[in-house]
Amino acid sequence: MKPSVISQIIKQLHETYRSLDGGDLADYIPELAKADPDWFGICIITADGHIYEVGDSDQEFTIQSVSKAFSYGMILDEFGFDAVSKRIGVEPSGEAFNSISLDPETGRPLNPMINAGAITATGMVPGKDFEERFEKVRSRFSEFAARDLRVDESVYQSESRTGFRNRAIANLLRNFEMLDDPVDEAVEVYFKQCSILVNCRDLAVMAASLANGGMNPITHKRVLEPENVEKVLSVMSTCGMYDYSGEWIFNVGLPAKSGVGGGILGVLPGQLGVAVFSPRLDPKGNSVRGVATFKELSRRFNLHLFNYPVLSETVIRRIYRLSDVGSNRQRPKTHNDAILEHGESIVVFEMQGDLFYSATERLIRSASELEDGVSTFVIDLARTGLTDSAAEDLILQLASSLKEEGKTLILVDPHHALTREKFDAQTCDVLFCDELDVALETCENWIVEANVTKPMVSGIVPFHDFDIFSALTSEELSTVEGMLEMEGFEAGACIVKQGAEAKQIYLLAKGTVSIYHRSENPGRKAQRIAAFEPGVCFGDLAVVDGSPRSADVIADDASTCYTLSVDRLKTLQEAGNPIYPKLIQNILLINVDRLRRCTKEISSLKG
Amino acid sequence: MKPSVISQIIKQLHETYRSLDGGDLADYIPELAKADPDWFGICIITADGHIYEVGDSDQEFTIQSVSKAFSYGMILDEFGFDAVSKRIGVEPSGEAFNSISLDPETGRPLNPMINAGAITATGMVPGKDFEERFEKVRSRFSEFAARDLRVDESVYQSESRTGFRNRAIANLLRNFEMLDDPVDEAVEVYFKQCSILVNCRDLAVMAASLANGGMNPITHKRVLEPENVEKVLSVMSTCGMYDYSGEWIFNVGLPAKSGVGGGILGVLPGQLGVAVFSPRLDPKGNSVRGVATFKELSRRFNLHLFNYPVLSETVIRRIYRLSDVGSNRQRPKTHNDAILEHGESIVVFEMQGDLFYSATERLIRSASELEDGVSTFVIDLARTGLTDSAAEDLILQLASSLKEEGKTLILVDPHHALTREKFDAQTCDVLFCDELDVALETCENWIVEANVTKPMVSGIVPFHDFDIFSALTSEELSTVEGMLEMEGFEAGACIVKQGAEAKQIYLLAKGTVSIYHRSENPGRKAQRIAAFEPGVCFGDLAVVDGSPRSADVIADDASTCYTLSVDRLKTLQEAGNPIYPKLIQNILLINVDRLRRCTKEISSLKG
Repeated sequence: MKPSVISQIIKQLHETYRSLDGGDLADYIPELAKADPDWFGICIITADGHIYEVGDSDQEFTIQSVSKAFSYGMILDEFGFDAVSKRIGVEPSGEAFNSISLDPETGRPLNPMINAGAITATGMVPGKDFEERFEKVRSRFSEFAARDLRVDESVYQSESRTGFRNRAIANLLRNFEMLDDPVDEAVEVYFKQCSILVNCRDLAVMAASLANGGMNPITHKRVLEPENVEKVLSVMSTCGMYDYSGEWIFNVGLPAKSGVGGGILGVLPGQLGVAVFSPRLDPKGNSVRGVATFKELSRRFNLHLFNYPVLSETVIRRIYRLSDVGSNRQRPKTHNDAILEHGESIVVFEMQGDLFYSATERLIRSASELEDGVSTFVIDLARTGLTDSAAEDLILQLASSLKEEGKTLILVDPHHALTREKFDAQTCDVLFCDELDVALETCENWIVEANVTKPMVSGIVPFHDFDIFSALTSEELSTVEGMLEMEGFEAGACIVKQGAEAKQIYLLAKGTVSIYHRSENPGRKAQRIAAFEPGVCFGDLAVVDGSPRSADVIADDASTCYTLSVDRLKTLQEAGNPIYPKLIQNILLINVDRLRRCTKEISSLKG
Repeated sequence: MKPSVISQIIKQLHETYRSLDGGDLADYIPELAKADPDWFGICIITADGHIYEVGDSDQEFTIQSVSKAFSYGMILDEFGFDAVSKRIGVEPSGEAFNSISLDPETGRPLNPMINAGAITATGMVPGKDFEERFEKVRSRFSEFAARDLRVDESVYQSESRTGFRNRAIANLLRNFEMLDDPVDEAVEVYFKQCSILVNCRDLAVMAASLANGGMNPITHKRVLEPENVEKVLSVMSTCGMYDYSGEWIFNVGLPAKSGVGGGILGVLPGQLGVAVFSPRLDPKGNSVRGVATFKELSRRFNLHLFNYPVLSETVIRRIYRLSDVGSNRQRPKTHNDAILEHGESIVVFEMQGDLFYSATERLIRSASELEDGVSTFVIDLARTGLTDSAAEDLILQLASSLKEEGKTLILVDPHHALTREKFDAQTCDVLFCDELDVALETCENWIVEANVTKPMVSGIVPFHDFDIFSALTSEELSTVEGMLEMEGFEAGACIVKQGAEAKQIYLLAKGTVSIYHRSENPGRKAQRIAAFEPGVCFGDLAVVDGSPRSADVIADDASTCYTLSVDRLKTLQEAGNPIYPKLIQNILLINVDRLRRCTKEISSLKG
């Protein structure tokens, strides 16, 4: 699958819109008019850092007003919103980029995307002198772009030489005390900031960093605090495209920022950063091909913010009862029967996708709708993605509410999506597990404890209690007794080795053992696939079909087993001893029971 | 779990903010000043119609400016955007609600949320006279609210008596030919539209209809065309809260609309409609408690549009090879071995959640990253929610690209999320299946056809080829032959009935049969849980453990079986005939093989 399908689509768009030759190069300084009007690049970067690009995505140009979004973010990180909002508002002006737009009473610039607001923002960047302040800007922008950015000195000189209007704005700002001394230094840093060279890919990385919650998806470094990302995107959405902002949100529906260098970047929060570069500008100062490409990208890929698809039911992956899907622990028949009977009251919710407000609301509603017979809710978060604080708060409330009703909540949360201290602080008695299987096993143990007369075996299970010897006469039992050996294992001992020849059947008389399957890939951790408790036999499958041991069996604690060797079984068979068919029939019955439970479980899991 | 956790939270918010007693009642007409300043209601409705409400959610009040969003939507539906945009812009004005804000050159109102734009919109509502035009508005609003709405006549009379400013605006609009004659009729309909009575729940239903893509989640009727929903939400986001719009998006981050009656509605696209009602207004004309409640709701539930969580990997639910998880079809051992060997080249992607651009991009990227050994991709959409046109286009492109490489694509699409005609038109040879199991079965059949010497049995499988009779001497085989009977079944015949006593083992010699499990709930459709093909025995489990038949077995086509009765098996056993332990051992081996495959499958499914 090369070239990738998505690259193909953006190549088509590039092909289509390269023929657009309306619009003019910016010419208020001669340096900008030197650009090649045919330059045209498109770059899309996903929030996890995958790059799709086409055309002149390497061609450098000056960042210009696109810088305003990032210098505003910088000072939000530095001073916090309360301090910044005293000097810069967040209301759209409905006016052009170079309008003065100060609040008539306070002199506060209406927003950070007009020149007045941007100069104020840059003026707030701390530093002892011009060099230090500018270097702060340049280095932060470089972190955003994941590349060391430099300045187009001739553009900077030219901006500085001719920037009288911006100097007038700066002095007005100083008059209203929105800008501190020295006024000239602030304007100079601003001119130089606008003259930083970027390419289309840089802008897409910067946009993707905003899409990724302030974390640069290429370097994996934080470049903006998460709470400031939504603030920067908010002003971009209402003010980012000058007096075309309303129409832009209408037609494209992405927070965006453009510059007279020909660059436009757009952000689909949580998903994508997009940048288009082409220096032909429309009368509002936006790239002609840029606007056209963004419109079509938005339409083609349904990126409009307000066209977000309706949340579907699929946040709940599966709901089932413990009576339908059990743990991997193999238990004696009496225990299994109790679990089958009482497992109805224990419900498992497997969640998937990101857990934010609406998804959690679905979970809680679905839990509320279950009839009153449910005593325990197991919520499995192993497959969920991000969990936000709203979702966590709802789950905390759910925990309290269940506690009041005398019900139990078990949270399977291997990735620590939830903060356990918060649950502890609230004393809502939630049980946290790292594995669903452990949660299921715990619930089964509760059922066995409460409902089986002899739930746990204290001593050693007598050999004649094993299912494998049922229906044997007392005479036959004596014969069998003489054939059994007894073996003890320390905790951690390997009772059976994967791949070894199968020489005996084990009857677990005391202790517990776990089965681990080792992958062919030696680097991977062995997977615990089952556990056995006293009264259960293991190792019978390999004996029956003569295949090598399929897994390791490790003693969880000090354990004792009866063993029955293959050789003795063969002797019985060859002698035509009626014990042999009885044993085989019992092994068959045990496995038929296992098979029936497996089939039921597969049906629940696939459903 | 009653009261529900979410209701509890909004009750807390209601409790907290009812103490806010700043702000004043609207008093430009005496009727509005009669409201009780302490009225306070909150209502949240999910995009699928679940209602959470607290406080005075039943108290009626006049809709006022909230109506502007819906009359704008009405004329977009009626005339389309191109016609509407000639008369109404979409740029924020940065000015107050009653500002005139016409474009100085064309006289076009800047946006539909200021009075000038709203009067123009209402003026476009077609009808032969005042009554007909107003009724159009009232009945559409009623459809939005899922309730028949009426007018507060005294508010209407008062608005009409004192509305000189709006009459001035209307005449200016007429002067610029934005409004058609009769001017007075348009203003009167507008006054009466603003006097329609709603309660807080109505506004939440209207908001939820926008959140639900224009489909009313209570009545399930379409109330706005989907393409116009994003347009209405776009202007709400930039202009919905008067000159507080920028700060609103900044602090709350939801498209919203407020009215001087004290109502505010907000929309989280795809997820929620929210409404708050409290008649105390701030100087910008927005409800004081409304703004405070929305700010806290947004913070508490993380509803800010630009705080959308980063898309996680969980759109792909599972990836596995056919060699790890097979279909439910039971096959002879030689076939199973071939599938195990060649199934590596067939990969299944189970998708979950909503399939839009970014989710599909992940799928395609993940498919591209698999090594070249893959010949067939099975993409299972059974658990996906909405699929938008962007996702469909990408899958179409993927299909073409795979075809070029000589690879096969199978789409499991039971809900017809994709338009099959589009795939047919492109002749990209995609195989559509309604069930994953059918897709897996098909792939297995391909493998068997290509790799097994005698893949399909044309005639009748000789009885001695069945695994159950392996290791029998020729003498023993003759004995067995004498014990077998032969039975034929027509297509559709019920061979085994669920719940019946198990009297024989079946050996399928010809044809195919399917196993259906009937639920205890008689209303539910029987579920097909397995299928068998010639050379396989069935019905052995129930014979072995004496339990009643666990499922129906139905002949898919004309089928022939050998049967071996329980009585004859018992005779063998009682006679101590060495055939008996051999048969039991063979049945055990068959089931051990089944059990091993089930265990592997469970491990893949749980992984």
